[in-house]
Amino acid sequence: MAKYKMILDLDTGIDDALAIAYALADQDCDLIGIIGSYGNVLVEQGVRNSLDLLYLLGAENVPVYQGSACASTKNRFAVEPVSATIHGKNGVANLSLKHSPQKPAVENGVDFLITAIHKYQKELIFVPTGPLTNLAAAIKKDPAIVNLIGNVTFMGGALSVPGNVTPAAEANIHQDPVAANEVLRSSLPLTMVGLDVTTRTLLTKKETKKWRSLGTSAGEIYADLVDYYIEAYQVTNAHLAGCALHDPLAVAAALEPSLLDTVFLNMKVDTDLPFEGRTIGDETRINKPAETTQVALDVNKKRFLNKFMTRLTGLFEKY
Amino acid sequence: MAKYKMILDLDTGIDDALAIAYALADQDCDLIGIIGSYGNVLVEQGVRNSLDLLYLLGAENVPVYQGSACASTKNRFAVEPVSATIHGKNGVANLSLKHSPQKPAVENGVDFLITAIHKYQKELIFVPTGPLTNLAAAIKKDPAIVNLIGNVTFMGGALSVPGNVTPAAEANIHQDPVAANEVLRSSLPLTMVGLDVTTRTLLTKKETKKWRSLGTSAGEIYADLVDYYIEAYQVTNAHLAGCALHDPLAVAAALEPSLLDTVFLNMKVDTDLPFEGRTIGDETRINKPAETTQVALDVNKKRFLNKFMTRLTGLFEKY
Repeated sequence: MAKYKMILDLDTGIDDALAIAYALADQDCDLIGIIGSYGNVLVEQGVRNSLDLLYLLGAENVPVYQGSACASTKNRFAVEPVSATIHGKNGVANLSLKHSPQKPAVENGVDFLITAIHKYQKELIFVPTGPLTNLAAAIKKDPAIVNLIGNVTFMGGALSVPGNVTPAAEANIHQDPVAANEVLRSSLPLTMVGLDVTTRTLLTKKETKKWRSLGTSAGEIYADLVDYYIEAYQVTNAHLAGCALHDPLAVAAALEPSLLDTVFLNMKVDTDLPFEGRTIGDETRINKPAETTQVALDVNKKRFLNKFMTRLTGLFEKY
Repeated sequence: MAKYKMILDLDTGIDDALAIAYALADQDCDLIGIIGSYGNVLVEQGVRNSLDLLYLLGAENVPVYQGSACASTKNRFAVEPVSATIHGKNGVANLSLKHSPQKPAVENGVDFLITAIHKYQKELIFVPTGPLTNLAAAIKKDPAIVNLIGNVTFMGGALSVPGNVTPAAEANIHQDPVAANEVLRSSLPLTMVGLDVTTRTLLTKKETKKWRSLGTSAGEIYADLVDYYIEAYQVTNAHLAGCALHDPLAVAAALEPSLLDTVFLNMKVDTDLPFEGRTIGDETRINKPAETTQVALDVNKKRFLNKFMTRLTGLFEKY
């Protein structure tokens, strides 16, 4: 039996697609739902992509809930050009995925999250890999959840390296710094999987070739997705020799925290320019005990990449 | 016999005065010279202060060399108003210290450093607690020194917390970001003791009262110095319950690295506004081995404070 219930909160682009695959492939994980967010794509597109990817991977029974459509401080959202460059206009490399017969769940993603936390408590892991808007909204609606949930491991932020959208800000945090600040200042059991570690776990066309050679739909589609992503990385992140496995690393680390070296630190997010979106230690709380928020500073790359390839290749063989 | 030869590079204000005392008081340390820098004070004033403090502590035999008078990229330097607020206009709480009969050494500080590195090599520890201008000048003049010296442990920078002069920059690095960038990008065996740890080691009037009660000149003068510093901290750093032991922590950690928890990271310093002076991981070298540069992220406060008080109180008893 799976050790953990997991909810993913995705703005489903290409590395989110890898996160879904990892969560489905890991035996310790029972993926009980996906919440859709705006970010790499519009929320409706992200929900559509999640449904179609679940269908591709034989998991159309996993419900997908729609979450926030824009930042907590805004009332509209437009996809940034760089997101379309990296993930394709539709978030999935401009491929036409076969549509799932499933529809999005009726319940709102934020309400689903609150209900699930009350139901599963410490057994539940929440992994947001997009903006932290849904999580901040859930805390605002029901502050009790911060002490109930097992763990939140999010992909976002950068502590020991510069951001990737501005020199201060990583993309997910940049979307909604106010929401991120509320999450990082809360007493949630929180692990930050930021650029500090995700830019150390890289995939190349050597690996996607392996998937393509499986001769399955999933193998071919994931190879196409990731090749697109790798080619975009060659332009946008020429200093990295591959594409960064941001979102699947967060899933893997949520299930096996020992993949990471972390420091406990009371964190905050800057909300004003030019530092807007910077994730950094809160100097006013530096001498207070730091017991709930951990920031990953290093990762066992080799062990993660082995697990990642074993799980995903095993899954893609079947579909 | 002392385990290490040490050279301090100081812009002698109040915490530099504590660094001198720590270096003199620790049995593992043979303080072979002090290089003066601009920073908290003008270089001439810093040299004067170092000479007078050494004289106060019965160590007038330690030579003091004058180093750079301004940043590597500038041709003049003026003390910032905040420095005068924290350290006093003369760097030593506006006290009139009894003048040492010694004069500054004739040799330039940069040349002294180069000669000493060649002479003592791995036995030598260099501890700059001001701008990194002298060290960068020494590397420029004799690049071979980076592979000869035992260790450089500098007070400066901030990785996991904001700066103290701007939200990006710590004061020492802010003085000469270009020099700091050269030092941090070099292959020196380097330990950064920044605000990440120095703002966790605090002194209060409880400790200075102990020094004052010794009934010695050194005890009284150091109590006066640090009380001034504590009062300035109450205004400039109200969130800290005491004054930060920046410079003496660097000396202690240079002698006993296990006081710190560090991460190895390839670092850089931003040299353009608004991030000018930020010490941060170099994202272009994140997947290269990081073998020489360590950044302190935590400190065993209790052990350090015990050592600090034992050593300094023991020294002040004698003079």
